[in-house]
Amino acid sequence: MGIDGEPLMNRQFLLIRRPQGEPVPADFQLVETPVPATPPGGFVIRNHFASLDPAQRGWMDPHDSYMPPIALGAPVRAMTVGRVHASDNPDYAPGDWVLGLNALEDYTVVDSGRVDLLVRSGGFTRKLDVSFVPSPTMFLSGFGAVGLTGYFGVLEALRPKAGETMLVSGAAGAVGSIVGQIGRMQGARMIGIAGGAEKCRRLTADFGYDIAIDYKGKSQRALIAEIASAAPGGVDMVFENVGGDILDAALMNIAQRGRILLCGLISEYNALGPVGARNIWNLIVRQANMFGFLVTDYIEQYDEAGRQMAQWFAEGTVKVEEDIQSGLENAYPAFMRLFTGANTGKLILKIAD
Amino acid sequence: MGIDGEPLMNRQFLLIRRPQGEPVPADFQLVETPVPATPPGGFVIRNHFASLDPAQRGWMDPHDSYMPPIALGAPVRAMTVGRVHASDNPDYAPGDWVLGLNALEDYTVVDSGRVDLLVRSGGFTRKLDVSFVPSPTMFLSGFGAVGLTGYFGVLEALRPKAGETMLVSGAAGAVGSIVGQIGRMQGARMIGIAGGAEKCRRLTADFGYDIAIDYKGKSQRALIAEIASAAPGGVDMVFENVGGDILDAALMNIAQRGRILLCGLISEYNALGPVGARNIWNLIVRQANMFGFLVTDYIEQYDEAGRQMAQWFAEGTVKVEEDIQSGLENAYPAFMRLFTGANTGKLILKIAD
Repeated sequence: MGIDGEPLMNRQFLLIRRPQGEPVPADFQLVETPVPATPPGGFVIRNHFASLDPAQRGWMDPHDSYMPPIALGAPVRAMTVGRVHASDNPDYAPGDWVLGLNALEDYTVVDSGRVDLLVRSGGFTRKLDVSFVPSPTMFLSGFGAVGLTGYFGVLEALRPKAGETMLVSGAAGAVGSIVGQIGRMQGARMIGIAGGAEKCRRLTADFGYDIAIDYKGKSQRALIAEIASAAPGGVDMVFENVGGDILDAALMNIAQRGRILLCGLISEYNALGPVGARNIWNLIVRQANMFGFLVTDYIEQYDEAGRQMAQWFAEGTVKVEEDIQSGLENAYPAFMRLFTGANTGKLILKIAD
Repeated sequence: MGIDGEPLMNRQFLLIRRPQGEPVPADFQLVETPVPATPPGGFVIRNHFASLDPAQRGWMDPHDSYMPPIALGAPVRAMTVGRVHASDNPDYAPGDWVLGLNALEDYTVVDSGRVDLLVRSGGFTRKLDVSFVPSPTMFLSGFGAVGLTGYFGVLEALRPKAGETMLVSGAAGAVGSIVGQIGRMQGARMIGIAGGAEKCRRLTADFGYDIAIDYKGKSQRALIAEIASAAPGGVDMVFENVGGDILDAALMNIAQRGRILLCGLISEYNALGPVGARNIWNLIVRQANMFGFLVTDYIEQYDEAGRQMAQWFAEGTVKVEEDIQSGLENAYPAFMRLFTGANTGKLILKIAD
């Protein structure tokens, strides 16, 4: 530690090998490098909190998705919240809180070119006013991509009518826990799927769900029957975060002209070959619709959504759950909580207090 | 034969066992039963031509789809065109041509209850005016479900804008050959996938396609690359008749906000477990949409579509291809042409001249 309590070195959690299936510790390396110098016109961020998301697993694969892969030998890309550590840019003063697409490391350099890019990229990278939130982590959870995903996914993409039934997989997860609450507000009948009794208890107690279905230890046939029993007329909407057997069971229960929002397919991200959706024949039988959703589609409406979400959080209408793990040295086990189903709510890695 | 040239017995092609995967001859039995008596208020049809369709394979499975399964021991359900053989109903006189959902048999009984049902079910079952068509088989091809499927699938469901690219699988098949011609009329750039050099020649020579892709002997990787080379900006629309590897290759080439119409998945109908769509993750990356299509959705517009199609056929703007196989005794090998890719255009079984 330096005399101000800051580390003298920059710890970086590097991707050194592309995972084959499930990531293993040897795919990563924690290294120490010098604290980076402040570039002309740019600044250096001290990262405090990093978002751990299923999307990061995709970025570790060699192919482009909606973002290029993480380079081998580079720190793992992550949304972070941090403070300006040193700056040569008049708009970013030391101590300012900032949000950005950075990496799992103590310090991130933002050169002048990237400052421009940050400004142009809209809502995801900006200075933060942390005075009105209980914790800066809110910008990675309720005010972050997951909160906006729940907001736009429900209100703009699925648009439930009162009395319609919505089935949500990964319902106790970061997105699912918010989807439940916003869907219920719209008068939809909410059915959540999660793993384990405690998560299922939270679904109905805290996350707005009318019915909780525990998928653990159930065959696909049993899961199909349990959804059918919860929604005898079929499910009008599916908010899909998981994929695989759970999506296949949803497909078997889709109502006539039902709509399936594909938000994520976390059960697939560590698979060596994609499973996809085996029961798409039922899309034909039911004249149903399955579509991909990216929150960045709604970038123009982020401010409006943020104001609405802030009001809901302040009123307590919508609650946000965070699962905060500590320490860059724990980045690997913390990240793997996403895939074991260990986390409830938004998974965050604390890098510094 | 009776003295009027009609058979004295009713040959029926029965389903006697549910196929496990690919149908085999022992799943069926050709039997002779007495020519049925005319029921009070009903009539008896002498079937002349039967439609052989992928959907029939689905009806042989034990589960309900959009229609109940064919009962074991019953003749295989089929759309047929025939003439009234004997009648106790003043609206149906002997010699009238009729279209209906009947079966692979010489004679079909239509009791009075079913006459009402026929009338209520709209366009698919009705008396026919065969005077204005070159052959009554046109009511199973161009004026039948496949013609209407091409019409509504392109014009109502996909709605191509001029200059957009449409990828069609099974492009030399009954539906695909019509989709190519109607899509081209709308100014879409048409890419067809079919199996073999001769079919591919027909795609560009006769069926309206700008580019033909032969899938035979190609790996999925090669197919993905060939589509990408034909549509460097991605395909805006997919008209999917096949499924499996071909749908997966289409998914890899879908453009931003592309739309995928699922009309059929013939590669799956004989599979023991569904393959589905493995690359649906790309629906998320491209914010694309995949939806099921049934022509019966457009039943209210059948008359209007029929008039438009009649004009196109008369002008020669749209041509219809028929593959007519002969004889109830050949029902099994004729039906299997659908799955071996042997047929070009609409497959029809001639039961009587």
